[in-house]
Amino acid sequence: MRSRVRLKDVAAEAGVSVTTVSHVLNETPHTRINEQTRQRVLAVAAEMDYRPNRIARSLRTQSSGMIGLLTEEIATTPHAGRIILGAQETASKHHLTLAIINSALQADADERRDDVIALLDRQVDGIIYATVFHDVVTPPDELSSVPSVLIGAKDRARRVSSVEPDEFRGAFAAVEALIAAGHRRIAHVASVEDVPANRGRRQGYRTALSAHGIPVHEDLIAEAEGEAGGGFLAASRLLDQREPPTAIFCYNDRMAMGVYRAVADRGLRVPEDVSVIGFDNQEPIASGLFPGLTTVSLPHYEMGAWAVEQLVDQISGTGAYVAHRLECPLVHRSSVAHVPMPPSGSIT
Amino acid sequence: MRSRVRLKDVAAEAGVSVTTVSHVLNETPHTRINEQTRQRVLAVAAEMDYRPNRIARSLRTQSSGMIGLLTEEIATTPHAGRIILGAQETASKHHLTLAIINSALQADADERRDDVIALLDRQVDGIIYATVFHDVVTPPDELSSVPSVLIGAKDRARRVSSVEPDEFRGAFAAVEALIAAGHRRIAHVASVEDVPANRGRRQGYRTALSAHGIPVHEDLIAEAEGEAGGGFLAASRLLDQREPPTAIFCYNDRMAMGVYRAVADRGLRVPEDVSVIGFDNQEPIASGLFPGLTTVSLPHYEMGAWAVEQLVDQISGTGAYVAHRLECPLVHRSSVAHVPMPPSGSIT
Repeated sequence: MRSRVRLKDVAAEAGVSVTTVSHVLNETPHTRINEQTRQRVLAVAAEMDYRPNRIARSLRTQSSGMIGLLTEEIATTPHAGRIILGAQETASKHHLTLAIINSALQADADERRDDVIALLDRQVDGIIYATVFHDVVTPPDELSSVPSVLIGAKDRARRVSSVEPDEFRGAFAAVEALIAAGHRRIAHVASVEDVPANRGRRQGYRTALSAHGIPVHEDLIAEAEGEAGGGFLAASRLLDQREPPTAIFCYNDRMAMGVYRAVADRGLRVPEDVSVIGFDNQEPIASGLFPGLTTVSLPHYEMGAWAVEQLVDQISGTGAYVAHRLECPLVHRSSVAHVPMPPSGSIT
Repeated sequence: MRSRVRLKDVAAEAGVSVTTVSHVLNETPHTRINEQTRQRVLAVAAEMDYRPNRIARSLRTQSSGMIGLLTEEIATTPHAGRIILGAQETASKHHLTLAIINSALQADADERRDDVIALLDRQVDGIIYATVFHDVVTPPDELSSVPSVLIGAKDRARRVSSVEPDEFRGAFAAVEALIAAGHRRIAHVASVEDVPANRGRRQGYRTALSAHGIPVHEDLIAEAEGEAGGGFLAASRLLDQREPPTAIFCYNDRMAMGVYRAVADRGLRVPEDVSVIGFDNQEPIASGLFPGLTTVSLPHYEMGAWAVEQLVDQISGTGAYVAHRLECPLVHRSSVAHVPMPPSGSIT
């Protein structure tokens, strides 16, 4: 293992004191070092491939050049890797390093506080705190001792800025796309989970129908577990109704996967007989299904990037409190067809 | 924003010098501080919730307590989040913080070197370098200036220890499971990609057949793009043969997803008519397919954890060079059935 070139090695090679080398390399003002010495130190440092000690620099500037990302169960969130990627690439752009701590989902308030403190102990310049299952959270007090941003939930006390996906408008746009394709009997395969995504998407479904003068039929909303198996069960109930839906808006792509299967089991086809829209744009499902699934994309990368930009604004003193929502754009593939014979008049 | 309590704040409150506080809190040996003063400093520090500056401590100990994880395209690797999780949780156990840098797949040698240097500038105690698409790599020289471990590839120069999934044995076990279920006409849906996973899995398939005295028929190996669409095309070719296979071992779960569809399109059933085994245990596909997909699990979490343990060994001076392979266990679900009427004699 090669040892790193240190300040004292440069000093020895250049035949000057460590203090002189430090003053030259750090361009310390008000020092009296002659130009010849300065040039020699710079040349030796370059030749020896000396890299200044970032930790020593941090101590001087009171800035670590590092930001912390605290996440709930990285592995259980589809695409959480995209949050990390968005945060990491944006941090790099600002010459910041990203440190990651994963909080267990079961972590209690004290454990979360400990995670925040672990990052504070590293003198991070800011902290991003990403959660999954709540609309509003009460983050540990310690979080607001540094620039900080929440991903996925708002701060109950409106101190810590936040960014969330706009689930409601994403769902609204999806259902509007089905209405624009002539569908009126539009079902919703919903999850039984009590999470913001489920509430926001269901509300988007109901509001879009109402906004277009289409009554909301409770028997067209089928709830089940938010996985492929649940989607299969929910769609089976919907498709076996006396008057089945011509289109199904699904809580997520995993449920849509089960909906496809329920459609196929009945000898029907997507989209000719039943149009389907999912949510999440979760690969490899969305593009792997036959036909490709039209769905709503979650802006994971964008949330990670937004959070870092917001941190940078706060660090530079220009960031004010904001609770931001990012658009969930509709991704068109091949699972939506126009209703063959658009029914005229009011079909309820 | 609350400012942090610093050493000088504790000193002011306790009515002693900063040096005294530092000596007390750091338990500096050979100092003459009376017990009463010591107790007062400790009480004040506790009351003010003072936390020692980790950076200052790092400077003293020459250890940052941080390790770096450098990955190729976090977002493009299925389950890379599990590598991060395994590394992060294991790092936490050792009171180490994990910093992450994502290298672009297209990064050239210089850019990768820059990424390593960025971590070295942070005085990381060690670096994990995770790659995806190569058997053997030549890591940047700088990597071996600190304890380091490769994930997913071996070091050409045998300096940096590594951990990889045992693709070959995973595939071998999968094909053996099909043979044990009575299958003899076993096809392989392979990827066209020139990656270690594809080579290792294909070799495992061929070797398992040979080991059981079953001839390898080249027309039972169908190549296509390693996605659902490719699996559909490859399986379609296989199933339309005069004597179609009774079982298909797939390069990955995404291809298996397409194989299921090709089977269903022909009015056949998995596993009654065709048994299928995938590879990757990629959720939500593996458990989301009907019936659940029997597949081979990639030890992502375990590789991340192993890499950190190996770093810790190296940091403590006990780690020697090792190129380790981790088992890819078979995960049994419902896509394999016994051949209804096991053919006797040699069926080729």
